[in-house]
This record gives sequence, structure tokens and C-alpha cells, in this order.
Amino acid sequence: MKKEITLTALAKELGGELVGDGNLTINGIRDIEEALPGDLAFILKKKYEHLLEKTKASCCVVPSQVTETLNNKPIIRCKNPNLAFKKAAELILPNHIPHPKGIHEKAVIADNVTLGKDVSIGCYAVLESGSKIGDGTVIYPHCYIGCRTEIGKNSIIYPNVTIRENIKIGNRVIIHPGSVIGSDGYGYEATRTGHQKIPHIGDVIIEDDVEIGACTTVDRAKIAHTKIGRGTKIDNLVQVAHNVTMGPNCIIVSQCGISGSVKIGKNVIMGGQVGMVEHIEIGDNVMIGAKGGVIKSIPAKSIMAGIPVRPIKKTMKILALEEKLPEIYERLKKIEKKLGVK
Amino acid sequence: MKKEITLTALAKELGGELVGDGNLTINGIRDIEEALPGDLAFILKKKYEHLLEKTKASCCVVPSQVTETLNNKPIIRCKNPNLAFKKAAELILPNHIPHPKGIHEKAVIADNVTLGKDVSIGCYAVLESGSKIGDGTVIYPHCYIGCRTEIGKNSIIYPNVTIRENIKIGNRVIIHPGSVIGSDGYGYEATRTGHQKIPHIGDVIIEDDVEIGACTTVDRAKIAHTKIGRGTKIDNLVQVAHNVTMGPNCIIVSQCGISGSVKIGKNVIMGGQVGMVEHIEIGDNVMIGAKGGVIKSIPAKSIMAGIPVRPIKKTMKILALEEKLPEIYERLKKIEKKLGVK
Amino acid sequence: MKKEITLTALAKELGGELVGDGNLTINGIRDIEEALPGDLAFILKKKYEHLLEKTKASCCVVPSQVTETLNNKPIIRCKNPNLAFKKAAELILPNHIPHPKGIHEKAVIADNVTLGKDVSIGCYAVLESGSKIGDGTVIYPHCYIGCRTEIGKNSIIYPNVTIRENIKIGNRVIIHPGSVIGSDGYGYEATRTGHQKIPHIGDVIIEDDVEIGACTTVDRAKIAHTKIGRGTKIDNLVQVAHNVTMGPNCIIVSQCGISGSVKIGKNVIMGGQVGMVEHIEIGDNVMIGAKGGVIKSIPAKSIMAGIPVRPIKKTMKILALEEKLPEIYERLKKIEKKLGVK
Repeated sequence: MKKEITLTALAKELGGELVGDGNLTINGIRDIEEALPGDLAFILKKKYEHLLEKTKASCCVVPSQVTETLNNKPIIRCKNPNLAFKKAAELILPNHIPHPKGIHEKAVIADNVTLGKDVSIGCYAVLESGSKIGDGTVIYPHCYIGCRTEIGKNSIIYPNVTIRENIKIGNRVIIHPGSVIGSDGYGYEATRTGHQKIPHIGDVIIEDDVEIGACTTVDRAKIAHTKIGRGTKIDNLVQVAHNVTMGPNCIIVSQCGISGSVKIGKNVIMGGQVGMVEHIEIGDNVMIGAKGGVIKSIPAKSIMAGIPVRPIKKTMKILALEEKLPEIYERLKKIEKKLGVK
Repeated sequence: MKKEITLTALAKELGGELVGDGNLTINGIRDIEEALPGDLAFILKKKYEHLLEKTKASCCVVPSQVTETLNNKPIIRCKNPNLAFKKAAELILPNHIPHPKGIHEKAVIADNVTLGKDVSIGCYAVLESGSKIGDGTVIYPHCYIGCRTEIGKNSIIYPNVTIRENIKIGNRVIIHPGSVIGSDGYGYEATRTGHQKIPHIGDVIIEDDVEIGACTTVDRAKIAHTKIGRGTKIDNLVQVAHNVTMGPNCIIVSQCGISGSVKIGKNVIMGGQVGMVEHIEIGDNVMIGAKGGVIKSIPAKSIMAGIPVRPIKKTMKILALEEKLPEIYERLKKIEKKLGVK
Repeated sequence: MKKEITLTALAKELGGELVGDGNLTINGIRDIEEALPGDLAFILKKKYEHLLEKTKASCCVVPSQVTETLNNKPIIRCKNPNLAFKKAAELILPNHIPHPKGIHEKAVIADNVTLGKDVSIGCYAVLESGSKIGDGTVIYPHCYIGCRTEIGKNSIIYPNVTIRENIKIGNRVIIHPGSVIGSDGYGYEATRTGHQKIPHIGDVIIEDDVEIGACTTVDRAKIAHTKIGRGTKIDNLVQVAHNVTMGPNCIIVSQCGISGSVKIGKNVIMGGQVGMVEHIEIGDNVMIGAKGGVIKSIPAKSIMAGIPVRPIKKTMKILALEEKLPEIYERLKKIEKKLGVK
């Protein structure tokens, strides 16, 4: 699974500048403090360059600002060591994830399922009637793919994922274990005889290059679509309610909760544990700090934080004054004393 | 799966007032912007009535306040279009969810399991010894039903749900995918040799007409019962700790966290991401705003919000003054300057 | 499953002081309000001693402060009734959890898997190539154990758990249903062509005596290890991001979110719904109140609360003054009026 490569070839692939013997080879990648001879290691920021001193790695990728080779250790200077890491992992550890291969005999696939070329279906996966799986897609064990659900090409569905009926999932989509796509939205009408369940007859559309974390839930629409736009990346344990639309290219960090019918633009970034009320609109390129509580729509390009969210500068000012409240109170009392009021 | 119905018959079933040709038929339901001839569409609020102009739907259900038929399009005026939607979906799209039918040969059912009439057990579901499943209940693939667990009639357990041993679940209960019922409560006793796990020998009782969202966790009691009362609706990713009791008819929105031994009355409504400490009581008809932090018991009928929660009017006032803190601070400094103090 | 024991023997085992007839026997444990003759019941705090009056239990364990035997009911006085409960449950209800026994014929175990003595593998569990399971460990139905993943001795993996490849799990570890260990960390590099996924080639190490709640997610490291130290107890629905290290002996309550590369010391306690930003350090013995928002490192032994977290006394003072803000504002206006300013 590991491939050997010379430092000259590697530096070329990474678009970096090699300092050292280009004929040396590496065949693994390890953390700089655990690396052994033969390994490539990484330093992402100049402040960690002291780690070069003790590492046993055969070569280190370093940011451009690192100018010296300590211990005559070969280094490869790269503008973006994080992207170099991605590239190096693809070169040296191709297929480092041992996906299932082929159609397992204990997968249960309904008669009228359509499977593309080179599809892999893991043991005990269940594909219901009318589902379609595109070329090169991998379905892990214990996944449930509902009736008429379609998944595009080269997608990966990890174990124990549930995708209910009539869902549309694009190409190169990754869904991590335990997630649920297409569960009923949370909608009731209060009546004298209790909460009446409103049917959810809509679906979920997940576009190309979306990634969905572990144990994340994406509810189906009441009518029409819940939609995760192209290139959006959702972390673990996130709630996406019925009829939400978002993207393309949003970043939604762990444990965010997005209520029903919220419209989120493109390139929106939300820190962890953000929550928002129903039926609001979040403009393009908005950033919302972690734990933010969003109670009304936010115009494009705003940077917001706080509970409730306000423009971040305002929130910072308010938090600083909250910190000062004990002092403010003392100053107020001093004035009252001087004036003889209370 | 779709049933055709005349507008006259439909209006009668919905208890609405038809304006237009009652002999026309519809056989589908779609979002008003995507609807095609033959479809019924819905407008839930008068402010959306402009959508009537362009829709291709054959008929629209509208709220009573919509007085004109635009484009001579047939409309059905209903007092509660949301309940009309529910009714129409039941009429026109009966069985729109393709539940598994019958006992799949690859379900693993222990010898002494009791199955009612018309039970459906999906592929690879596992039912342990002594479990009982009532008439008409559907267990999806990959569910795990523990020893001696009982599920009532006409309930639906979606895929990848785990229900551990000795749990009691009522009639018409719905549990969405990935949820866990009856896991051990979180209880330890700190000792010099570390945290000692306290056994949880109690159970979980889920009464009739409860709905539990996806990836929600309901822990079993340490002793006695964790109890979800009749008609309570719990959203996705909610934590219900050991020995919590709630209901009937509560509404618990996504990502709420309810700590151990909390007693929640009837008709309580919690917004998303509410959290509460252990061993408190929440009275009947209490409402708690999203993200609220509950640190002590709340008397019946209170409307609370904030972190920590306070009566909502008080919280609103405090939030408004927080907003004003920069101005307040300036005014304080002005006074100090005038008085020559600091 | 229930064992009978005399009160004399029980008192001795519990290290408690029996008041009453030592020849009586009990053979069950129930909540004091539901107990029947033959049952042992528990009162954990003196304030509940009135419950002794009506209980039908044959004997009650009570805290040392309870001095009277009401109704001549036998009691066993214990210093720590909670630990006595643990001990009694182990004696009277040994094996009260009906774990699967043996290797189920419908488990799918790759050829080169190593199984210790007395291992139990449930129906439909999947163990991939190169995985190792230690003596006495139980794997429930529907679990997925990835390639080369190792689990130690006497651990319990509940249903529908996903453990991906190359994970190391120690002895006596418990993982509750629906949890995910070793999913990819959430890491992207923003580029002009969208968010580029950074590979996560590291692993997860879970040490001995760790417990992980239901639907909790522990991401694998980008490189090196995500590590949960010995004796750490994590509740349900918690997010542990890539490269987090914590423990030993931490307590992480439900719905906490721990961002990437956070280093958490030993004996740290976090209330529910705490969140923290990336790349910070939490010192040994730190306590963080529920819902706390941690935005920078915290030195050892600190007790913190609030959003953002501050030392708890400071947070309490600020919250008290927030409560007073309406009054403070009135007092400010009064001063302004007196001074004729605004």
C-alpha cells in the first residue's frame, strides 16, 4: 500500500524546493515526533521548526519561511505544506483507506437496483427497490439505501448510514458512519387531541463533492427539497432540518443546528454549536462564530458572533463591557455616594 | 401509490370551500413552484398568494384570507391549510413511505419472540429472546431489539435503531434511524482508584404516540424508569438522560440535552439546544426558548429564555441593555468627567 | 439471573451495619417506591428517609445518617449507599445485561482475524481483515470493526457501533450503541476550486477503562493519534475531533464539542454542551460548567463557567450584575436627571 519515491520526484510533485540528496527515497508518512527512517514528516508552521532537530524522518516538508536545514536533514520547502501533505499522502499512501471491494454475497440488493461499473457493496448492506448506484461508488456494510434513492459516481457511504427513499446524492460525496439522510422533518400541528404529525413527502438533494460527518442528520423536506449545495462540508453531529437549502461551498462545524426552511447562501462558515431559528436567510460569505445564536436573517458578508449574534466587533465590545460590569457598578455607586442619591 | 380524486370530493374531505370546477381531478401533490398539471399545491400563508399566479398546479389549497382566484385557477379555501396538507397527503399519497412488508428471511428472530398480526421485520433486523412486537408494527433493516423488549401496535422503527433489553414501547410510536433507546445512564462514583461505573438496572418506558428523531439517545434508568409520556415529540440528536420523566405532549426540539432525573410536566415546549442540569422539575405548559440554560426548577406556565433562563420579558430587557452597554458606559464616563471623579 | 443472599451476608459484603433480622434473604433490587417483598431498596440521601415508611422492600440500604428503623424494617447503614448499590447489583443481579454469547454463525469474520478466549461476536457483526479481539470481549450485532483494529480484553461494543481501520482500544472499554470511532477528521484547505479534503492518516487510541456513550463521535487523527486516556468517561452525543488528547480520568458530559488538536489533562470535568476552539490546552483538574464556551487555554485546577468561560466567581458576579442591569440603568438615568446631563 506504501509507494517508494525519490526526494527529487517528490519535490517536483509537491511543487517544492528540495534541499538535500535527491536520490534518497521515502516510503511512508509519520508525525514528526514518531517518524522513522524512510518516513516523510511535516512542519506546517515555522514555529515548530525546532522539531527538525530530533526527528528521525528521512525528509521534512517545511513552510517556505524555514531557511535552514538542521542536522543536514533534507527538507522540501513548500508554500502550502498542508496541500503538500494532501498530495504526498495521495502519492505515498494511495488507497490508504481499505474500502470494501466488489459486491459482497451477503449484501441484499433488490431485483431492480441499478449498479454502475466498479461499484462496491459491503456485507449486509441493504439496497431497496429502484435505487441506483453510480460507477465506482462504495457502500460499506450495514448501510441502508431506500427505494428509488440515487447515488452518483465515486461516492463513499461509510457503515451504518441510513439513507431513506427518494434521495438524490451526487458524485464524490462522502457520508461518514452513523449519519441519517432523509428522515422525516419535525413538523406537527397542535390540536385539541394532541400534536398531529405533518407528513414529509419531499426529499433531500445532496450535490457533488459534499461531505457529511458522522452521526449527522439531514431531514427530508415537507414538500420540495432539503438541499446541500455542491462542495459543502458538514462536520459530525450536525442537524439539518427539513427544507433547509445551503451552499455551494459552505463549512458547517460540528453540532450546529439549522432549523426548518433556513436558506443559507454560498461560502457560509459556521463555527461549532451554532443554532438558528426557522425561516431565515443567511447571505453569501457570512461567517458565524462558534455557539452563535441566530434569531434573524443575516446579510451577505457579515461576520457575526454571540448569543444572539451581532456583528462581531459589537459582540466583542459588549463582552469586554460585561467583563467590566463589576467595575462599572462600583463606579456607579461611587457617583451615587458623592451625589447623595440612591 | 397516487390516488385520483375530484376537487369536489377533495374539498369535502378537507372541510374547505372550493372555488372552481369541481369535476377536475388531481392525483399528486407538489410544491407550488414545481407543481405540474394534475398536482395539488399549497399556500400556507396569505403573504405567499402571489405564487398562485405562475403555478402550473391544477388546484391550490389556500388559507381562508385568500379571497381571489388568480388566473381562474381552482382554489380550496381552508381554515388550517397545514392540517389540510396532512389530510390531502393521506388521501392522495397513501402509503407514500415504502415500508418493508412481511418477515424477511434474513431477519434473525429468537425462538421465543412474540409477533402480532401483520408485523413487518426487515432484512438483517435482530430480535432477541423474549421480545414482543405488536400488530402492524414495522421494524426496518439493521434494527436491534434486545431481550424482553416490548413494542406495541402500529409502531415504526426505522433502520439502524438500537433498543436494548427490557424496554417498553407503546402503540403508534415512531423511532427514526440511528437512535438509541436504553443505553446505560451516565453515572459514576469518584473513588481513589478512578470513576466507578454505577450499574443501570432500570428501564425505559415510551408511551403511545411518541415520536423520537434520528440519532437521539434515551438512557435507561439507574433504577425504576426513564419515561417519555404519551404524545411527546422529540427531534433529532436530543439527549434524554437516565430517570428523566416527561410528558404527555411535550415538544423537544433538536439537540436539547436533558440531564439525569429531571421531571418535565405536560405540554412543555423546548427550543433547540436547550440544556438543563440534573434533578430539577419543569412544570406543565412551560416554554423554554432555544439555547436556554436551565439551572433550577421552573414553575408551571412560565415562558423562559436565556443563559441562564429567566422569564422571557426579563431576558429581553437584559439583552436590550447589553446591546446598550457601550452607550451606558459612555454616559457613565460623561458623568464622571462632569463630577471630576474616577 | 437473580441470586438470593441473607442480610447478614449482604451487610458484610457492602461493609455496612445491619439493623434487623440477618437471616432474612433478598433476591432482587427495585426502586423503593416499586419494591416488593424480597427486594432490596436504596435511599441515597437522608432527606428521602420518609420513603422507608411505605416501602414493601424487605430491606433498605440507607446512608449512615439515618438512625431509626421505621416500621421495624431491616436497614443496612452504609457510608456510601451509591457504591453499595453498585456492589449489591453485582451480587444480586450478576450478568443482568444479556450480552450475546459465543460466535454467532451469521457474524462475518475475515480469515486473518485474531479472536481471544471467550470472545462473543453477535449476529451480523462484521470484523475486517487483521482485526484482533481480546479475551472475554463482546461485540454486539451490527457492529463494524475495520481492518487491523485491535480491541483489548473484557470490552463491550454495543450494537450499531462503527470502528474504522487501525484503531487501538484497550481493556474493559465500553462503547455504547451508534457511536463512531475513527471517522475522518474535519479538515479542508480552502482553494480557488473549493475546499480540498486533507487526508486523515492517523488513528485513535482508546485506553483501558474508558467508556464512550451512545451516538458519540471520535475522529481519527490527521497524523499521529487522537487519544482518550485511561478511565475517561464520555457521555452521549459528544464530538471529539481529530488529534484531541485527553485524560486519564476525565468526565465529559453529553453534547460537549471538543475541537481539533485540543490537549486536555487528567481529571478534567466538563458539564454538558461545553464547546471549545481548536489547538488549546486544558490543564489537569480543570472543571468547566455546562454550556461553557472555551476560547483559550485554561491553567490547571481552574473552575470556569460562562460564554466565554471565566473563573466561576467572576462569571457568577457578572451574571448577577446582568440581572441587575435594568436597575443599574434606572439609577444611571436618575443621576443624569439630577445632574441635568444626557
